Amino acid sequence: MEQSVRVKLDAYKELVRKIKSYYESLALMYWDLRTGAPRKGAEVRAASIGVLSTEMFKLQISSEMEEYLQFLMQPDVFHTLSEIDQKSLKESKRQFDLSKKIPPAKYQEYTELTTYAETVWEEAKEKADFAMFEPYLKKIVDMLQEFIEFWGIKGTRYDTLLDMYEPGITVEKLDQVFGRLRDRLVPLIEKVQKASYVPEAGFLNQTFPKQQQDEFGRFILREMGYDFEAGRLDETVHPFETTINSGDVRVTTHYYENDVASALFSTLHEGGHALYEQNVSKELSATPLGEGTSMGIHESQSRTWENMIGRSRSFWKRYFTDLQKHFPEQLNGITVDQFYEGINKSENSLIRIESDELTYNLHIIIRYEIEKMLFNENLSVHDLPKVWNEKYEQYLGISPSHDGEGVLQDVHWAGGSFGYFPSYALGNMYGAQIMNTLRKEITDFESLLEKGELHPIKEWLTDKIYRHGKMLTPSEIIMQVTGEELNPDYLADYLEEKYTEIYKL
Amino acid sequence: MEQSVRVKLDAYKELVRKIKSYYESLALMYWDLRTGAPRKGAEVRAASIGVLSTEMFKLQISSEMEEYLQFLMQPDVFHTLSEIDQKSLKESKRQFDLSKKIPPAKYQEYTELTTYAETVWEEAKEKADFAMFEPYLKKIVDMLQEFIEFWGIKGTRYDTLLDMYEPGITVEKLDQVFGRLRDRLVPLIEKVQKASYVPEAGFLNQTFPKQQQDEFGRFILREMGYDFEAGRLDETVHPFETTINSGDVRVTTHYYENDVASALFSTLHEGGHALYEQNVSKELSATPLGEGTSMGIHESQSRTWENMIGRSRSFWKRYFTDLQKHFPEQLNGITVDQFYEGINKSENSLIRIESDELTYNLHIIIRYEIEKMLFNENLSVHDLPKVWNEKYEQYLGISPSHDGEGVLQDVHWAGGSFGYFPSYALGNMYGAQIMNTLRKEITDFESLLEKGELHPIKEWLTDKIYRHGKMLTPSEIIMQVTGEELNPDYLADYLEEKYTEIYKL
Repeated sequence: MEQSVRVKLDAYKELVRKIKSYYESLALMYWDLRTGAPRKGAEVRAASIGVLSTEMFKLQISSEMEEYLQFLMQPDVFHTLSEIDQKSLKESKRQFDLSKKIPPAKYQEYTELTTYAETVWEEAKEKADFAMFEPYLKKIVDMLQEFIEFWGIKGTRYDTLLDMYEPGITVEKLDQVFGRLRDRLVPLIEKVQKASYVPEAGFLNQTFPKQQQDEFGRFILREMGYDFEAGRLDETVHPFETTINSGDVRVTTHYYENDVASALFSTLHEGGHALYEQNVSKELSATPLGEGTSMGIHESQSRTWENMIGRSRSFWKRYFTDLQKHFPEQLNGITVDQFYEGINKSENSLIRIESDELTYNLHIIIRYEIEKMLFNENLSVHDLPKVWNEKYEQYLGISPSHDGEGVLQDVHWAGGSFGYFPSYALGNMYGAQIMNTLRKEITDFESLLEKGELHPIKEWLTDKIYRHGKMLTPSEIIMQVTGEELNPDYLADYLEEKYTEIYKL
Repeated sequence: MEQSVRVKLDAYKELVRKIKSYYESLALMYWDLRTGAPRKGAEVRAASIGVLSTEMFKLQISSEMEEYLQFLMQPDVFHTLSEIDQKSLKESKRQFDLSKKIPPAKYQEYTELTTYAETVWEEAKEKADFAMFEPYLKKIVDMLQEFIEFWGIKGTRYDTLLDMYEPGITVEKLDQVFGRLRDRLVPLIEKVQKASYVPEAGFLNQTFPKQQQDEFGRFILREMGYDFEAGRLDETVHPFETTINSGDVRVTTHYYENDVASALFSTLHEGGHALYEQNVSKELSATPLGEGTSMGIHESQSRTWENMIGRSRSFWKRYFTDLQKHFPEQLNGITVDQFYEGINKSENSLIRIESDELTYNLHIIIRYEIEKMLFNENLSVHDLPKVWNEKYEQYLGISPSHDGEGVLQDVHWAGGSFGYFPSYALGNMYGAQIMNTLRKEITDFESLLEKGELHPIKEWLTDKIYRHGKMLTPSEIIMQVTGEELNPDYLADYLEEKYTEIYKL
């Protein structure tokens, strides 16, 4: 490599590390706000976050970054670089373009709008008053429509948004896979709802002291292979995973003393996200590639650990006695089969985050269809509640009694995150497809679960997915691991088999 | 105010707020490292701290800062500004000069040297091997001698260092007050050591479960008036107080299950620092004046709450029954007088941080005399252990068996903090002098303590000291509050009275 290239490449890498240092401080400030920062420091904290975010943003779109990218991405220079450097540059370029194409004043206006809109949304949800939130949401949609023009329309307008969260995913593809999934799940859910056999789940809602829930959660995280020397578990109102740096991947959960399942499965869920982040190859740590490749692949891992492993019969054959030891009175006389059925009981509910593994995907498909209508089909924000309620009636046979449990239930739109929801269902589909391959390659998968030997499973996932970080795109991962494109039938097959058995259909 | 002045003043204030945002992120990253950040993230964290510190340093000595200071401190502009703005500018100028006078390469070298020296010191202390640490310490002293030239010599060379921690304090002043203090304490300590009556303290070293210690510590912090909505208490190896922002003032403690006094008094100590920081006037929050005025005044508050209040008989007349309720078995049959005597037992010890209220000051005076010899009297670093041991023999009648419990015991010198130690004894003297005035103005002081009515005491201290932040210098505070200059006799009188009574001299 020529000296001039080496100098520019080193300067580029140093700038990336600098941006990562800002990112680390911001991630920690957010984590701290949610885990126990004192109330009276929150206002100054918000201002400090604002200052450091702005500084980070300036670095991302700086003239230095522009210069390095231009120089290093010239074809005759670029081809002399390593694969990691090439992909790092492409990722930096992608982020640079996304930010740089929006005029700074517009970006500032949008940031302030969404920050304020979240506060309005909170109150509107509380009061079930969509009209209160409507003007803000309309403005957000209008600004995003404008941003789509700046970013450039790929396929349809909504494709531009989808691509930000799941590179390569399009409306065309989602229409196909979600359509297929919907067509297979709607009749299955109908059968489940009409089934004469209904699992008992009442025993999950006794009093389960926080302390023992916490101990069991830590035990399960260790069993999964979560490294407590590179992370920690805390309690927050809403559970999340956050990567502070490559050696510091934190998870949180929320304990309800009247519900043993909630914290348990959110711990498994966030633990799945964390396993992914903890096992990205260390050679990517200082690059823009040192994290999960997309929201969809990330959700595939959280939902695999939460559901396909964590809500499986084999898993509980091994761990139910441990859970019973933590709650000997509460779970006295409950069999592992009763427990398994209890944690998999399906009910058509109005609230996405409370929904079960079977109906969850329909909540996502509804949101996808609505977002697509907003951006591609001129649905007006004003008509959102009406469309929302119709779709819930159509797909789940139920309808919200007010917008607080309907169109206002999620924060995502208030924050401008249109195009994000599909990731959740993509995650379920990716997960089922990946697990299908895993079961073929690790033929004693069920017996490993029954013995609590989770290590080979984690290692397989690390080898196929985790270690690659952003070196592979979501579709490259799926093709490499499973040998075919995204195929919704694996998820439908899995759910059909599981629920047919549980509900004796 | 002219428009041009207003514009520059606003720009200056924004720059100050920006620097404070960096400070906040750094303070949080340090706090997090000490309270539970995972081990494997520490290396990247250290690098991120390095990046953000450098950015903050650059802002502090930036050409913008220089321009604002030059413009706003022109006499005809300066006199039009408010008192707060004037004092803010002076403080920014002081910090600017301190940093700007050192060539950046030297500063970088010094930072790396002291960072590495702390690691060497740790091992050297462990191995009681002064020779191992000596070359690093010599280099640090040499560099500081060079820095003193850059900063400019005020009085003697060592004065330049003293002034950084305690503005206005000089060798001349310290020689006088420490000489007087030493002359009064040495004979008192001799009498105490020879006293036939010796308090019993063994009951303090039973098993005291952490959980109850923590509960009692939180109770006492609330009683003092520590605001848990503007702070939090955590456990660390070494207790400390840190101001994350004006509404977020955190304390830590360390629990030893075989010692009920350690965590209790370090909680009171750090709580004293925190009361000061929590009660600085909010109108100073966004300025460089929004913190305690000096190390010495800060220590006066921590040590007043720890010792003059926290180790007083009246305080325990109120709170001992509460402590007993937390440890009914361990403290069964112990009277409040026995407890009072136990926590005030004096023993000549080799280790500063384990020493009692009476002998503590001699540990500081020894360090002061040695630092002065190093910087003003050509004592060579090589001879430090010899001088150290001689002085311990002379003042306390004991001598270390190895350098690990002698000259290597404290981290301060490895970090280059020469001139810092005197603050601790200054704090004790300031504290006694301030409390002398407080007792005159709050005439029912003892009965307030006995009733646990600590609020009026906190309010008095807030009015006289806390709210002013850096608006007043240490000597202005002492003059305004007590009507005279620093006078060591108040501390000597207080200790004489207290220990004469306890030891029945």
